[in-house]
Amino acid sequence: MSYQAPLADMSFILRHVVQADQSWAQCPDFAELDADTADAVLEQAGIFASEVLAPINASGDEQGCTWSPEGVKTPDGYRDAYQAWVQNGWGALACSAEHGGQGLPNLLNAALFEMLAAANHGWTMYPGLLHGAYETLAAHGTDALKALYLDKLVSGEWLATMGLTEPQAGSDLGLVRTRGETVDGAEAANGVPVRITGNKIFISGGDQDMTDNIVQLVLFRLPDAPAGTKGISLALVPKFMPDGSRNHIYADGIEHKMGIHGSATCQMRMEGAQGWIVGQPHQGLRAMFLMMNAARLHVAMQGVGHLEAATQGAWAYAMERVQMRSPARPADAPKAPADPIAWHPAMRRILWSLRARTDAARVFSYWLGVRLDEAHHHHDAEARARALGDVALLTPVAKAFLTDMGHYAADEALQVWGGYGFVREYGIEQTVRDSRIAMIYEGTNEIQAIDLVQRKLLADGGAHARDLAARLLVTAERAQAHESLTPFAHALRTQVSTWQAAIDALVAQNAQDPERAFDIADDFLHATGYVMFAWSWTQIALSTLDMPSVAGGRSAEQWLQSARYGIDWVLDQASVHHARLQGDKRAVPML
Amino acid sequence: MSYQAPLADMSFILRHVVQADQSWAQCPDFAELDADTADAVLEQAGIFASEVLAPINASGDEQGCTWSPEGVKTPDGYRDAYQAWVQNGWGALACSAEHGGQGLPNLLNAALFEMLAAANHGWTMYPGLLHGAYETLAAHGTDALKALYLDKLVSGEWLATMGLTEPQAGSDLGLVRTRGETVDGAEAANGVPVRITGNKIFISGGDQDMTDNIVQLVLFRLPDAPAGTKGISLALVPKFMPDGSRNHIYADGIEHKMGIHGSATCQMRMEGAQGWIVGQPHQGLRAMFLMMNAARLHVAMQGVGHLEAATQGAWAYAMERVQMRSPARPADAPKAPADPIAWHPAMRRILWSLRARTDAARVFSYWLGVRLDEAHHHHDAEARARALGDVALLTPVAKAFLTDMGHYAADEALQVWGGYGFVREYGIEQTVRDSRIAMIYEGTNEIQAIDLVQRKLLADGGAHARDLAARLLVTAERAQAHESLTPFAHALRTQVSTWQAAIDALVAQNAQDPERAFDIADDFLHATGYVMFAWSWTQIALSTLDMPSVAGGRSAEQWLQSARYGIDWVLDQASVHHARLQGDKRAVPML
Repeated sequence: MSYQAPLADMSFILRHVVQADQSWAQCPDFAELDADTADAVLEQAGIFASEVLAPINASGDEQGCTWSPEGVKTPDGYRDAYQAWVQNGWGALACSAEHGGQGLPNLLNAALFEMLAAANHGWTMYPGLLHGAYETLAAHGTDALKALYLDKLVSGEWLATMGLTEPQAGSDLGLVRTRGETVDGAEAANGVPVRITGNKIFISGGDQDMTDNIVQLVLFRLPDAPAGTKGISLALVPKFMPDGSRNHIYADGIEHKMGIHGSATCQMRMEGAQGWIVGQPHQGLRAMFLMMNAARLHVAMQGVGHLEAATQGAWAYAMERVQMRSPARPADAPKAPADPIAWHPAMRRILWSLRARTDAARVFSYWLGVRLDEAHHHHDAEARARALGDVALLTPVAKAFLTDMGHYAADEALQVWGGYGFVREYGIEQTVRDSRIAMIYEGTNEIQAIDLVQRKLLADGGAHARDLAARLLVTAERAQAHESLTPFAHALRTQVSTWQAAIDALVAQNAQDPERAFDIADDFLHATGYVMFAWSWTQIALSTLDMPSVAGGRSAEQWLQSARYGIDWVLDQASVHHARLQGDKRAVPML
Repeated sequence: MSYQAPLADMSFILRHVVQADQSWAQCPDFAELDADTADAVLEQAGIFASEVLAPINASGDEQGCTWSPEGVKTPDGYRDAYQAWVQNGWGALACSAEHGGQGLPNLLNAALFEMLAAANHGWTMYPGLLHGAYETLAAHGTDALKALYLDKLVSGEWLATMGLTEPQAGSDLGLVRTRGETVDGAEAANGVPVRITGNKIFISGGDQDMTDNIVQLVLFRLPDAPAGTKGISLALVPKFMPDGSRNHIYADGIEHKMGIHGSATCQMRMEGAQGWIVGQPHQGLRAMFLMMNAARLHVAMQGVGHLEAATQGAWAYAMERVQMRSPARPADAPKAPADPIAWHPAMRRILWSLRARTDAARVFSYWLGVRLDEAHHHHDAEARARALGDVALLTPVAKAFLTDMGHYAADEALQVWGGYGFVREYGIEQTVRDSRIAMIYEGTNEIQAIDLVQRKLLADGGAHARDLAARLLVTAERAQAHESLTPFAHALRTQVSTWQAAIDALVAQNAQDPERAFDIADDFLHATGYVMFAWSWTQIALSTLDMPSVAGGRSAEQWLQSARYGIDWVLDQASVHHARLQGDKRAVPML
């Protein structure tokens, strides 16, 4: 299974379904960008993903990273691929032009990272944190720190990593124990200098052999810090200091993991490591949360990438592999002792379900990428605020819903290969293993659901969600106007109205029974995901009305088949969540 | 996560829920067996699983098997564990006393293999095929072949393996190409001698270093064989001939797989390998199908074992791991900055769902084990026939439904560990990887669904399924008689009546539209699984009415909590399948 970037599908969705160029026209920063340019950028990115990264995906998994006291060694080919990445300037895609970046929309960065994750998730972990570090430093760093580090991060000459987790502090960063003390000294010219001591775990790329320096953004506590999350500060801690001396930050080992073996997941030890505070003391989490929407969309794109990798692999294999006569065969099929398994109903169910979910996932996530760009770049302040509301509400949904789906759909897809699926050389089992981590990091999917319900939905009494619902219903009305699309209109209206009822019920119940919202947060998140999927399939269906005869290598009829399969078969799953959201409170006993 | 055999839970279910001793009283072969003896057998088996196999589970996964031209080397400790197995006579548990076995029910063998798979799935693959080979040979071998091989298989001195799959012949054994020719010679005294040439793949334990000889049961074609499945013969091909000479059957390599690394999955080559036909020429599949119910139940038990391993691990970890304050805490909980994650609603949802499904899976599978024993051993012919009908109908359901659940539930459980779940040393990721194969081998789960619908349900026009439904409703009536159990009665009736309607619809539609049954076979299988789960939870609830104050380390209240969680939350998933079974025909387009 060799990944081929699905450029034609991506372009159809960008141009016709989410109509990104109409959005760019409203954003002065992107006013000169057009769909042809975007296609050209993505085509080059696709070549990089398919020709540079995909070939070292299986070998990187097999070889993995190795650790010694001298440092981490990444798999063969990783360093060369990273050099190509830097030379092509991919890391700078969405960085601002004033810092040497290309200033392109986050949307294109999201599409880029979809392809990278699909081609080689392990490798993609290294540049994956670069953009977040760039944004944090650009927003909160002193001018002197920016002068020292920002250019190198934008160019990719140095890589960045995030130092959050400690053994006792995973989802609960309030339990961070790493300590830091401010000091005086020459470095004060660059910001407030600190000496940091403590241990971090699960630090992706905490050490590697691809760049000469590594810039770590580390969470720690100052001596006078209040307990919990309000006493966490953020510091920049380089592996090598500006004078070239080795800083006291060390990788003590790496984890042996289920997947992404090519990514070095490091245990880090700091012993009076030197650094500078980024942002205000005790406000480290706030500084990091700023970049959280982009980072979570980034992880959501990994889910889309895994969906795509599983889908294209399963379709290709199912057309090739021949077993038994199918009870349904094309009328003109030649007489043969056995048919392609793609003709067998059980396989068709899996294959269409994969395709329908991949299409919807891409539409939902690209649209969210558009909204993220509008939240920061739209010329109109009200439009920016509304876009930011969509992003706040839907980013945890995209992160959790799409990574759940990326993993479980890849796992279902494995079944298409039968026994071969369990064997390494066919690649799908690696996709299953690699995709599992996306459900955990950048906030577990359960944490996303709590964020959605507590901090996004209930925080404004459901106001923004209701506003979104009203806009989604406009799409249903547009579909209703075309007789052939009434099933889409009906499905979307059903999803939205059930969701609206769930919002009202949640808001009403929350005053009397605050636990209720926690009990069903995951169901609310998934119900929201299916609302967006119903909307995505309807948008696709509407887009086929005036599309060119073939787009994305598929005819209008083929795009419609997949979207129709989605509303016919995939949306059933939403009813599970609806039953729990609508029903009387059910007990979730204490253990 | 170190597996502890859940002996108390198993005993409660055997004694009180499925009341195995009442069944044994009706089977002359088991008339002298009582529940205390069964408990004692399982206790010893539990010690073997927890103390001998569990300690070499992670190391066996890490080390894996290695191949060289001299043969396969299994992981450290595997051979010693196998010696202990043979010395304890575990392989002979359910073999007939006339062949040197213990003559115990298949049910106890099933419970034994649940524990083995939970403790160490990779190792369990080696003795896993022994019982099937024993049954095939006992039923179809000549007296001379039995004299040569049966005792050694019953004692476990030699191991057996099945040679079915070829690169082009996986689910479709009609495509087998391995050829064999009958020959004359001295070996004719033992049966019809053949010389076999061909290649087999995915042969579990095709070679290993644990026994001095390996007995292969190989599917092949005779020169005059009709095409397809009606031309397949079965032969016994030993690694070493009775005179000690090396036979021409060789392991050319082993597969590198997602999981069960300790199990050697061999590519086998036969070049005029000597063997004897087992059963009649061209009737090899028939000879093997005889043992298929026992073998599939065996795989279903792996699903139960994985469920148990995931459940006990997740519960233990969630009680230990502390993160954040929970919105729901016991009234007397001490004030602390963070609570056990087991108190958090999102984790309680996962933990109870795991427990409820594990309980129901064990009840369903043990009850099916009882029926399998009754099908062969009940004193009354009519009772045997009815039991065989249940076994035929429900064995594909148990195989597919429980292995799906074993894998996907383990995958959900991983989320409880968060980042640690992705790291090897915590064990749960190995359970996820190991459990995946059970959905594929012994007939993929999609093949099970086709078997269920085509060969079991439609073959008798739904008659046996309706008979079963009527009996399940008796349990609902019993529950209805107790006010506290009316939710169980209601849930079970709903599941059964929806299932009955689906049966009627399927039978009625099949005449006009034969593809329909293939389109929704998987949904029908899962709906049937949930019927049996609703019945299992209701049986548990009924059993708590007169149970001792504590059973399985759990009070009646605790058993009820888990069963109630099942009907309140887990059964929602059945509605997805019901929607597809009840609805109008939905399109599943050709590719």
